Amino acid sequence: MRGPVTIGAADGTEQRDHPALGAVPAMLAGRVADALSQRWREDQQSLLASMCVHALVPSGKLFRPILLLESALAVGGDAEVVLPAAVGAECGHVASLVHDDIIDDDDLRRGRPSVQHKFGVDNAIVAGDALIFDLFAALAECRATGASTERIVAALEVVARCGIDLCRGQSLEAELCERMDFDLDAYLTMVRLKTAALFMGACKCGALLAGGDETMVGALGEYALNLGCAFQIHDDVLSYTRQTGELGKPDTSDIRNGRLTLPVILAYRAATPEGRLAITDVLAGDGDPVLRRAELVSILTRAGALTDAADTAREYSRKAIASLDALGPTASRDRLRGFAEAAVNRDR
Amino acid sequence: MRGPVTIGAADGTEQRDHPALGAVPAMLAGRVADALSQRWREDQQSLLASMCVHALVPSGKLFRPILLLESALAVGGDAEVVLPAAVGAECGHVASLVHDDIIDDDDLRRGRPSVQHKFGVDNAIVAGDALIFDLFAALAECRATGASTERIVAALEVVARCGIDLCRGQSLEAELCERMDFDLDAYLTMVRLKTAALFMGACKCGALLAGGDETMVGALGEYALNLGCAFQIHDDVLSYTRQTGELGKPDTSDIRNGRLTLPVILAYRAATPEGRLAITDVLAGDGDPVLRRAELVSILTRAGALTDAADTAREYSRKAIASLDALGPTASRDRLRGFAEAAVNRDR
Repeated sequence: MRGPVTIGAADGTEQRDHPALGAVPAMLAGRVADALSQRWREDQQSLLASMCVHALVPSGKLFRPILLLESALAVGGDAEVVLPAAVGAECGHVASLVHDDIIDDDDLRRGRPSVQHKFGVDNAIVAGDALIFDLFAALAECRATGASTERIVAALEVVARCGIDLCRGQSLEAELCERMDFDLDAYLTMVRLKTAALFMGACKCGALLAGGDETMVGALGEYALNLGCAFQIHDDVLSYTRQTGELGKPDTSDIRNGRLTLPVILAYRAATPEGRLAITDVLAGDGDPVLRRAELVSILTRAGALTDAADTAREYSRKAIASLDALGPTASRDRLRGFAEAAVNRDR
Repeated sequence: MRGPVTIGAADGTEQRDHPALGAVPAMLAGRVADALSQRWREDQQSLLASMCVHALVPSGKLFRPILLLESALAVGGDAEVVLPAAVGAECGHVASLVHDDIIDDDDLRRGRPSVQHKFGVDNAIVAGDALIFDLFAALAECRATGASTERIVAALEVVARCGIDLCRGQSLEAELCERMDFDLDAYLTMVRLKTAALFMGACKCGALLAGGDETMVGALGEYALNLGCAFQIHDDVLSYTRQTGELGKPDTSDIRNGRLTLPVILAYRAATPEGRLAITDVLAGDGDPVLRRAELVSILTRAGALTDAADTAREYSRKAIASLDALGPTASRDRLRGFAEAAVNRDR
């Protein structure tokens, strides 16, 4: 088994500093973080605003906003024009985290209580809804920063479709887990929808709003799709390799929710009938999740499934990087390439 | 106490036929219902599509889509241009119903199992999210039917803001119920946000997309705000006057959820300290909701609070009708006036 690897931050413990990603993304993240910290402040007396501020601030590593901004820059556009959309991308992402934490019954997020743990499930449902609407409110704000209405409507279409795809992915994941379906194609479809769709929404939205042509928008969409798959599959591997407790998000979440991840699917496909039974038993069991996780890690390690899954993630990362060839040479293109490398070279 | 009144259908038991509202709204509702019945059909094998179809079809009385379409007609616009947005208005409304039914633990909606009752809470959260995204996907479709991108972005802004207001209203309602706050102004703010905001979103969206000028859009917004308050307050009254079991939605929902409605607030304000204690006891109690509802109805009737609340609803209805004076005379304006009358003259 390959050991945990190097830089970056996982989705669960997102951080604002980007030591490995350089000064420009850190500056862009700072702009987005400042805007997020002002958002929902005007009526902070209200329960809804308190929940939204709790969910948004302090912000995570802001990967989706940075992707959106770098995509705008990579097509020769202006980051200022698309800044509200970048803020919106984070609102949409955080909305999905708020609802995910209800579904997964996770009490911690980014090292602090999840919204449903602090405010209750009912209120957290409403907070997530508000953040979805806020994503679209933010998109409309790009009119004031100079995006054409033609471009905003094109972005609206992309973002709405990607949001629906995200839901399709979450729902498909529930279906696959429910019926213990170890089908590889179904899993890959699920990852494309659940994780890669929002990455694609961010990149295409940034490129569209910034005036990118069809080729550029297509290339960045292709990049984001592959990056999202690389990111999610690497996350799948990390959920078994990183140490319990080093994360804001408890890393027994996958085992508690019986999640079918790529290492599990690969191990299952290669297993004997007895081996398959052992995998389904540990996934469907109701014993201590920490012990069940340890048993599953042992099975996956013996099968070489963690290594194989990590290889698959790297393959997607390579495809993401290749997609960037259709763009002209810019510092943003180089940084987007760096993100694809970092996505499969991080240990949390 | 004033007895139950005449025409129309309540939010809970929405029906497609509009015998009292005339042929044009019925035709418009038919167009929207047909479009809704086609929506989400393409991948109906999936869990998500099954849930969305279950929630959307057969459709309810489609009041918000009709408001949107009539608003477009009332400013001299073309219903065909705004039809996708009307479909979107229903998607947004149904999204809020799907999430409301989770929050209120209601098992029935429109005479059939609520989404969370049939598919589970986790899946229902995702289905509601998808329908919010679909609202915006539908709005973007107005580009293909001939709306200018300038108008679509203006509508996007209004719809996103109204969606946030809806969430503010739901969250404020939870706060007021939680702390048993009988403040009248806070209640009226909550109604404006929770119910009237989506009505306003529908009317302003229709008027904007159809090319209405600022005066027209403002007048229709004012109309919708007052109509929404009239509608919600009349609903508050109906929840105590209509008979158990005649509804798709069980009408013990308000009492089970300790909801602070206008009749309760008016009775509380006029009550002696002992009377107030009786009201808080019945609201916060955990006995049989049917018995508690009967006791509350008795208190409200003796206090004259149901009559007073019905009068308040009629006052809002009159204000809604007066707002329409700023529009030129059209058949749609007459029908919008009729809706405001019908909103406070329905017995379910």
